Parts: sequence; C-alpha cells; structure tokens
Amino acid sequence: MAITFNTDKKYDIIAIGRACIDLNANEYHRPMEKTMTFTKYVGGSPANIAIGSAKLGLKTGFIGKIPEDQHGNFIKQYMSEKGVDTSNMVFDTEGRKAGLAFTEILSPEECSILMYRDNVADLYLDPTEVDESYIKQSKVLLVSGTALAKSPSREAVFKAVSLARKNDVKVIFELDYRPYTWKSQEEVSIYYSAIAEQADIVIATRDEYDVMENRQTEGDNQETVNNLFQYEAELVVIKHGVDGSYAYEKTGSIHHGKAYKTQVLKTFGAGDSYASAFLYALMNGKDIETALKFGGASAAIVVSKHSSSEAMPTVSEIEQLIKDQSVD
Amino acid sequence: MAITFNTDKKYDIIAIGRACIDLNANEYHRPMEKTMTFTKYVGGSPANIAIGSAKLGLKTGFIGKIPEDQHGNFIKQYMSEKGVDTSNMVFDTEGRKAGLAFTEILSPEECSILMYRDNVADLYLDPTEVDESYIKQSKVLLVSGTALAKSPSREAVFKAVSLARKNDVKVIFELDYRPYTWKSQEEVSIYYSAIAEQADIVIATRDEYDVMENRQTEGDNQETVNNLFQYEAELVVIKHGVDGSYAYEKTGSIHHGKAYKTQVLKTFGAGDSYASAFLYALMNGKDIETALKFGGASAAIVVSKHSSSEAMPTVSEIEQLIKDQSVD
Amino acid sequence: MAITFNTDKKYDIIAIGRACIDLNANEYHRPMEKTMTFTKYVGGSPANIAIGSAKLGLKTGFIGKIPEDQHGNFIKQYMSEKGVDTSNMVFDTEGRKAGLAFTEILSPEECSILMYRDNVADLYLDPTEVDESYIKQSKVLLVSGTALAKSPSREAVFKAVSLARKNDVKVIFELDYRPYTWKSQEEVSIYYSAIAEQADIVIATRDEYDVMENRQTEGDNQETVNNLFQYEAELVVIKHGVDGSYAYEKTGSIHHGKAYKTQVLKTFGAGDSYASAFLYALMNGKDIETALKFGGASAAIVVSKHSSSEAMPTVSEIEQLIKDQSVD
Amino acid sequence: MAITFNTDKKYDIIAIGRACIDLNANEYHRPMEKTMTFTKYVGGSPANIAIGSAKLGLKTGFIGKIPEDQHGNFIKQYMSEKGVDTSNMVFDTEGRKAGLAFTEILSPEECSILMYRDNVADLYLDPTEVDESYIKQSKVLLVSGTALAKSPSREAVFKAVSLARKNDVKVIFELDYRPYTWKSQEEVSIYYSAIAEQADIVIATRDEYDVMENRQTEGDNQETVNNLFQYEAELVVIKHGVDGSYAYEKTGSIHHGKAYKTQVLKTFGAGDSYASAFLYALMNGKDIETALKFGGASAAIVVSKHSSSEAMPTVSEIEQLIKDQSVD
Repeated sequence: MAITFNTDKKYDIIAIGRACIDLNANEYHRPMEKTMTFTKYVGGSPANIAIGSAKLGLKTGFIGKIPEDQHGNFIKQYMSEKGVDTSNMVFDTEGRKAGLAFTEILSPEECSILMYRDNVADLYLDPTEVDESYIKQSKVLLVSGTALAKSPSREAVFKAVSLARKNDVKVIFELDYRPYTWKSQEEVSIYYSAIAEQADIVIATRDEYDVMENRQTEGDNQETVNNLFQYEAELVVIKHGVDGSYAYEKTGSIHHGKAYKTQVLKTFGAGDSYASAFLYALMNGKDIETALKFGGASAAIVVSKHSSSEAMPTVSEIEQLIKDQSVD
Repeated sequence: MAITFNTDKKYDIIAIGRACIDLNANEYHRPMEKTMTFTKYVGGSPANIAIGSAKLGLKTGFIGKIPEDQHGNFIKQYMSEKGVDTSNMVFDTEGRKAGLAFTEILSPEECSILMYRDNVADLYLDPTEVDESYIKQSKVLLVSGTALAKSPSREAVFKAVSLARKNDVKVIFELDYRPYTWKSQEEVSIYYSAIAEQADIVIATRDEYDVMENRQTEGDNQETVNNLFQYEAELVVIKHGVDGSYAYEKTGSIHHGKAYKTQVLKTFGAGDSYASAFLYALMNGKDIETALKFGGASAAIVVSKHSSSEAMPTVSEIEQLIKDQSVD
Repeated sequence: MAITFNTDKKYDIIAIGRACIDLNANEYHRPMEKTMTFTKYVGGSPANIAIGSAKLGLKTGFIGKIPEDQHGNFIKQYMSEKGVDTSNMVFDTEGRKAGLAFTEILSPEECSILMYRDNVADLYLDPTEVDESYIKQSKVLLVSGTALAKSPSREAVFKAVSLARKNDVKVIFELDYRPYTWKSQEEVSIYYSAIAEQADIVIATRDEYDVMENRQTEGDNQETVNNLFQYEAELVVIKHGVDGSYAYEKTGSIHHGKAYKTQVLKTFGAGDSYASAFLYALMNGKDIETALKFGGASAAIVVSKHSSSEAMPTVSEIEQLIKDQSVD
Repeated sequence: MAITFNTDKKYDIIAIGRACIDLNANEYHRPMEKTMTFTKYVGGSPANIAIGSAKLGLKTGFIGKIPEDQHGNFIKQYMSEKGVDTSNMVFDTEGRKAGLAFTEILSPEECSILMYRDNVADLYLDPTEVDESYIKQSKVLLVSGTALAKSPSREAVFKAVSLARKNDVKVIFELDYRPYTWKSQEEVSIYYSAIAEQADIVIATRDEYDVMENRQTEGDNQETVNNLFQYEAELVVIKHGVDGSYAYEKTGSIHHGKAYKTQVLKTFGAGDSYASAFLYALMNGKDIETALKFGGASAAIVVSKHSSSEAMPTVSEIEQLIKDQSVD
C-alpha cells in the first residue's frame, strides 16, 4: 500500500531542528588525537534530510536557528545552493554558536564523535519564530527528536506540530536520539512520547524506541507499534541496522526492507540518508516495499563516503544500487 | 447530569503541584509598606484545594516537593493535621526554599501580593518522584497549571497525567495561571494546551482560558469549549468573577452558577475554595447545578476571611450560605 | 591612642552592601515551625550599622541595590527616616527580591535563622552604580564581607575600595561572614584576603578570621594581626563573644574590651550594634579602650531586644550601661 | 640593565591559564565561509608561551584544566612532547570542552577568528587544583589575563598569585585581553588592576592597558607606568605593533625595541611568540634591549607561518633574524 499526501501544498517537506557543522577527519584509520586536518560540511540530522530530499527532487524547506557568524553563513548558503528553502532559517542574535561534530574515521565499526552542543544556536529557536503561514504550505512537517532536548526549541517544536495538525500537514517524527543535552532518559521519554502521540509517521531505530519507552532492555516491535497506533500514527518504521528495517501499517501489514551491501567508511549519516530516500519514495507514490529499498540503498551509499550531507545520492544512484543487488 | 467517577479507588483526589507559605498582613486597609506584622499560613493553589477538600470530607493526597527547613516541616505537618496524605511529599535536598506570598489587605478591590518564586522547591519536583502505584489509587488527579511553569516540575506533571490516563484516573486541570516564572505567554499557551487536551475536566477563569489560547482580547466561551471537546474533556468550567461561573458538558448542556454576596476582606483564595467545594459536590454525586452552588458559596466564605487554607469552610457552612441566599 | 580621620569630608561613614528584611518571631521560646506571626524590620549587617551609626549621630550614607517592590520601598523609607542618606541606593529593575531572614526565638542560646538569599537584589549591585563623587565625600567606607559573595556585587566592592583608597577615604572591613551564597571556604578566603589587604581597619570574630585564613581549626590572634599589618591595616579588632574583644594597633598596643552582662533574648544583631558604636566612638576622637566599651555595651543592649535595626541604642543608653557595669 | 631571578628553583616558568585548540584555515586568501579544511594545533596564549619557551630551552610547566576527550588528550600529549611539564594539567570531569579558535587567512591585515569559549574547561580550573608545592618550584609564574574572565578560574589565579608572592616567585602578567566571556570592560578593569598591582613584570599592548584603565581613548604610557610602579612592578612592557615595543624600568630607564620586517601570513600568535622569546632572553641574563630584540624577532617569524604553537622559533632562528636585520 502507499501513503497519501495532500497534493495541494507548495512544499513536500519542511524540516524543523538543527543545522550544524560536521568536521570530518581527513586522515583515515587513526584516532582523533592523531587526526590533524578536518573537512567542514553542513550536518545535523534534519538538515541532512532536507538536503538529501532536495537532491532527490523534493521541494523542501527548513525551520531552524543558526549563528550570526561565518559558520551560520556557510550553513545557509550551502543549504540554499542545494535547493532547500531557507526563508525560515533565522539568525541567533545572542552570539550563540553552531553545534559541531568532530569525527574520527578509525575503522568501519569505530568512529567516535566529539560533539560541541553547549548553548548552541539551534536549541534557541523560539516558538515566536515558527510561522503558521509557512508550515501550512507543506505536505509534511519533519520533526527531529533532538530539537526537543531543551527549551525554547522544545516549545518551538510543540507549536510547529500543533500548527501542522491544525492545517492538515502530516507530522513525521524522526526520533534522532542523541544522549547529550538531555537531563535524563525519563525526560527524553516524556517528550518523545508527547510528540510521537501526535505523529502520522514515526521513524527510528529499535534502540531509539527503547529510549522513548524508558526501557533498559530491548522492547518488542509489535508492542511499540500497538501503543503508537492508539494515537495518530498510520505508519511506524523500526530500523535494525544490518538486519534491515520494518514498516508497520495501522492496517496490520508489515513490510521488511533489507540492508544493502557496501564498503563502509564510517557509520554516521546512515539514518539521515535512509529517511530522505524513504520519504522521497513515499511522496512519489511508491509502495512501502519500494520506499524501504530506497531508504536502505541510500544509507548504503552514504556510509561508503566521507560526509553525510555532501554525499547524499541521486535517484539514479539509488536505483542503480537496488538493481545491482536485486536477487534476480 | 452528574459526572461518574471510578469508585474502586482509595483516594478521591490526589493533587500535584506547589505547597507554599502565605504571609498575610495582620493590619488591614494599608499598603504593604505600612504593614508591620504578618501571619503565616500554608498556601499555593493545589495545597489549598487539597486542604479544602479534606476539610469537606474527601480523601485527598498530595504530590509535591517542599524545602528541608522550618517552612517545609510546617507545611507537611499542617497538611497532615488537616487530613491530607503527605506520603508522596518529598523534601528537596538542594537547599531550595518554599515559595512565599506576602499579601497586603488594602481594600476589597486591591490586595497586592509580593511573590518569592525564584528557584522554589516545588518547581524541582522530578518525574522520578512521581509514583505510578500512588496515582493509580485515586479517582482524580488534580493538576495545577503553575506546576508546568518550569522543568523538572513540568515533566513531573506530564508523567503524572500520562500515568493517570493509563490507570483510569480522571485528570482535572485547574489552570491556576500566575505570570511569574513563565518565560512568555506563548510558552504558557503551549503547555496549558498540551495538558488541557488530556484532561477530563478543565476549570479556569475566562482570563486564564485567554492566556491558554494566547489571545490578547477576551475569547468566546463556546469556541473555547468546542476546541476542548475535540479532545478528552467531558466538562469545562469557565469562571466570570461576580457574574458567576458556567459549566459546559460535552453533551451540550450549559449550567450557570451565581456568585454569592459576601463581605469581601481580600480576593485571594477564591478560586481554590471554589474548586475544592465544586469537586466535593461532583464526587459526592450531586448534579452540576449543585456543584456550581457549592463552588460559589465556598468562595464567598473564604474571601471574607483572613487566610486561604485555614479559612476553608465545612459542608454545613456552605449549605447554610446556599440556603440563606436562595431566592425562595 | 586614637585613630585620626580626614575631617574635611561631608559624611562620616558610607556603608556598602546589603539592606534586607528581617522577619522576627513574635512568639518566643518555640521553634519556627510553631511560630505563627512575624514582625518586619530592616536588616542586613551594613544596613544595621548605617542605621545604628546614624542613630548615634554620625552622618551616614549607603550604597546598595534594593528591589523595586513593597519591601524595597519600605527599606529605603525606613533608612531615610533614621537619617541615612539613601541617594545612592538603587532599585533593581530585573524583578529581583530583597533578602529575607526569618528568625525563631527559641532560647538565649538557640535562635535559628531561615535565609532567603537566592538571586537577591543586593548581590546585583553593579560597579557602574558605584559613584566616585559620592565615596570621596566620606571619611570612611564600610565594607561588609557578604557583599563579596557573588558577582557583580563583588566587583562593585572592589571598585568602591579602589576609589576609597584613591580619594583618601579609610576602608573599614567588617568580615560579616555568612556561609550561604559562597561556593567554598577557599573562595571566601581569596576575596576576604584581597579586601583585608587593602583595609585600614578590620573587624571580625575569631571564627571569621579563621574562615579568611582558610583554617579548619582556631588560629592565633597575633599571627592574624602580623599578617594584616604587612599590608594597609592600622587597627585590627578580633571579637571573642562572651570573652570580649581585642583591638590590635600597628604600633604594637593591644587593648581588651569586656562583654557586658545582659538579659539575652536572641543573639543576632550583636555584631552590627558593636560595630556602629565602636566606630561612633572612634570617629568622635575617643581612645580605643573607650571605643571597645561602646561596642560591647551597644551589643549587650541589642541582644536583649526584639530587632537588630529598630533596637539600636542611643549614646546615652550606651553610656548608662557602661557606667552601671563599671567596677568602681 | 638585567632583571634578576631566583636561581634556586627547578622551573624557569610555570604558566597558568588556557590550553585550547586552534583550527587554522588551510586555504589562504578567502573568507572562512569559503574555507573548507582546517589544520588542528594547540593554542591559547599561555600554552603557546609555555611551548615557545620550552622550545627555546627554558624549563616550563603549566597549570590548567583540559577536557577529558580527544582534544584534551591531544593538548596534553603535544605539550608534553614539546617539553612542557604537564603534571599540573587536570582533566575536567563535567564534560566541558576545549576552547576552539577557527581562523581564516584572508589577507595579512584581515584574519577573523571564530571563537568557541562557552563553558570551556579552562575557565573551570578550581583554586583547589592550584598546588603551592608546584608553584614554589618556579622562578616565574606567568599569568594570562583571560584566565581572570570567569569564576572559578579567576579565583584559581588569585590563589596562584598569592602563593607566588608568598614563595618568592616572580609574577609576570600578560594581559592577553579577549573581549569574549567578560561581562563588561569595567569588570576587566577591576580584575586586571587587582592582578597588575601584584605583578613584578607586566606585558601588554597599549590597547590592552587602555582596557585595564577602563579608558575609551588611548592613554599615556608614562601615566600607565607611573601608576603600576606605585605597587610591585619593576618592569613594564608596552607594545605598539609595527612601531615596536617599549620597556620601562622602575629605575626610570626606558628602552625601545623595533618591529622586524617579515612576510606576514596572519597576525595571530605574534604576542605569544614575543612573550616567550622576551622572557627567554631576560631569564638568560641578557639585558633588556636584547630581550626586546628577541621578542620582536620571534613575533616576526611566527606571523609568517601557519600556526602559533607549532611555528615557535628556535634560538638560532631568532638570532639569525636579528643579525640579518641589524643596521650594521
């Protein structure tokens, strides 16, 4: 089955949350202490998804706060060049900075990240900076869970979700859980639940659902899904890494998508590329099986490359990989 | 019509929120600058409602954080003596203090209050201190809006409401709006709406609904009520001061309760005494008209006296006033 | 010997630091939990000293920040009525409150105090609010150690002391140590030392010097004094409670003043009344022995009464007590 | 004339303050927005001076707080390899990060820097982490003004200076003024003055002395110097950029050192290389004229290279440049 979207809207996806800076190690196979040079990219899960979606041809926009400095200028210019509408990206006027992620590229299994997330501009997006007339123009509002980590960004998301529901805009919640900034797992659970209960589509790894459910041990997919289907959700995606991903429909159908083989350089960026290609497929009327393939293939491409944003694939690259690895 | 409550529960009402100290002027008809002595009472809207309800005979409990000092000890002892279960009142271990309200008694129309609410213990109630096994024992969870003003008390309320809904405990939301502590009216609106959408009964003044709806001018009762009835609410009470109060049922019925004549000494305490008597009546199976009378009569008694908590009336005092001012 | 002061100045003493509210128990011989009414007084060590000095006839002024509310108004009116120049008391415009001290009067030995000192207005006195043209008009700048507990009040004191030294104004440092607000004893020690090294006269209890010297056990008076005499000090007073007080001159002279017998109601206020009478005597050209008697007698009077500020004695009351308890 | 140092000490210089990360643009002649790769170096004025001094052959140590992460590990390893004793560099246990300085290399005149200084580890050095037994082993304690910008690092510096004076260790104060972190110029002025009054040698640019004196317009060198000579200072260095630098002795002698010609790549690092070579010369018994030449030549070398720390010159490089540009 396919999911239907309101066709009478200007934008396909408007994402809300952080747009930051990745500083990826240029030297491979060594710890960060031995890494001497770094390349700068735009990063942050919802920014990556917006960039990835735009590259696939979706009309995308972004709501977020960026610093009024050289990094903020770079973020805005880059996203604009990639086709993301940046009219609702606001500059922070209090001297706050862009979040940073320094990455090492040690081995395909180990790539530690050193985060700068203290008082970053993106977490200061204010509810007054969320504009109803913008959100109502989109088919989808994509919410990144990390934007809930702190006030006032948290309240900006609550407002955006409320405006989306009021204006017939589908809410897609990508849990995107990062432990920093949050005070406790209980706090994560409270706010993730509050937004998940209002979302039409929820996408996350099994681990992230466990955090949302405030569990210490792995939960059961069917239980997770049953709980969410009591509220607004019509589609729930649960990702299991190399075991692929599952999509549950409210109707009861369950779909499995495999993980594609690839030469892994580093693991970060996988989730964002998955989400952008999965959503691209869904919004182009493809069925859920195909969307799962798009997500898995896109992730396989990005983990083989140096960046998350710049490496986002095209439709033909994705289709080629799917074809190459089809059983027939 | 009457509202039905789950009878299979140990407590009638468990309130969550602040328990503080009122310091009421002993000298009347003068500004606070000229007031030289003060009398100490337990205060804070949900504490007053718990005390008032207990005095009327309901089985009540309280969830809140109090300071580990002489004021905290007094609050706990006083509430316990009045019949409120204090087993879930926790002491703050970080040296935070009780909120204070210094009141002047200048005239029946003017009674300014000087609040101490900076870093008060009650706003540090943590979600880990909210216990499911306690909440599930109650027919009603009474939420005071001021407990939403700051983290982590805000998250404690979200958790309590979620546990109440899971365990078939009715959620009653008393907006109890106080401007201090909140960052902006928009923030109030976001969190008040999030809780009101999960409440079975909502009680507030017209002004407080306007804040919840983030309006600058007075809203329309029917519009307010229509919006809430889209969610969980079955009963909405809107208070209009000397013009009395209105109760709207989801069925469409509307009831009006008059304001009772009284010798006003000061206006504070009116809302808390209203809520405790209104709920007492509802929970004793009386119809909504009678509950409105109970609320109005109780408020009339408290505004004629020196305190909010200590002045809470008995059932016979309320019934006597209703009888004295009945038209027949 | 007597200390000489610059006679060519308009004010005798300008004090800098906190002016707060005391709420003293009206009911005696019971813990605060059982105290139901309180009387309001102006409090705070430097405010008490300024009031006490003014009552004795010194020309006094005050530099400090008070809340823009009913308590702030009361403080300013009261001090002005008692003869303290309040032209350099500024109102806080950020909604901060007056410090509060609730006192119980349990027994002559036990009188616990419950302090409200979180984000109080007095600690937000800014260096820009310290005016050179005011300070230069005074013979003495009296610094209260508690004003060093937090920025920006700490910097305001550094500036005031620097301006006093530049303008030939004697610096008198009353350590006035209160454990709240400070982060660690080491922090106290660092800032107390920095100011004590610039003071002409230092006054404190033995316990307070131990804190300044970051000791865990009682230090030696002569060692304390030797250290201070390396810097600017010409007179050092060390108080030993019921054993009286000692004044050390840079010349090597040592003087002892006895503690006067009295009917103790509560112990607080003793240090402030001591300082105001000691300074009054010094500034009126009396010798140090006489000044020690004035200090001791004034303290004996205040601890027998209900307040600290309102109870400050007159010169004739002090002289009468000294006469009554002289050996001859 | 030459300055004499206590020869009976293990270390020549122990510096206190920040050790951070510089991320210098690899691409030249473009704004940071267009800079895509960066090279990582140890940075921070006192760390650079310690590294520069060690490279010249002085025995140096460092007191500071670094993050417990990959950047902190790198800083400690690098400094240790360059010969700096790191036994008193402590790891922050609260998750705080290293300060970062992203630099662009636009033109010899314009090189903007983007600083990350929010809640950085170095400003959380605690006075309890300053060890008397370490400081007493050094001839010189070098204090960087930026370490005064915030508590508790500010108190750590006060303690270190007090311990240095007590143990016959010369205090050298490098003003190293950076506008970030400070609340106001008045605050800078208060703390810079408090430390400058206790320093034996003070080194800064004319602009930095103007900040210390809380001036809006350029002050007069002789006035600055006269003021400092009232306290502990025996030598005051005032730098005037391309016009060279001046050294004032308490005896009244004044010396001028010229700026050396060089191919400027970027301007940062000049002050740190100046200080390390100037101090090297002084501590090796050279006269003040020669020390000024060493400072100027060292600065000329570093501004022609890519980094501040890694580019620190050797003695022979400095001597060669002095020789090359001597008039004869």
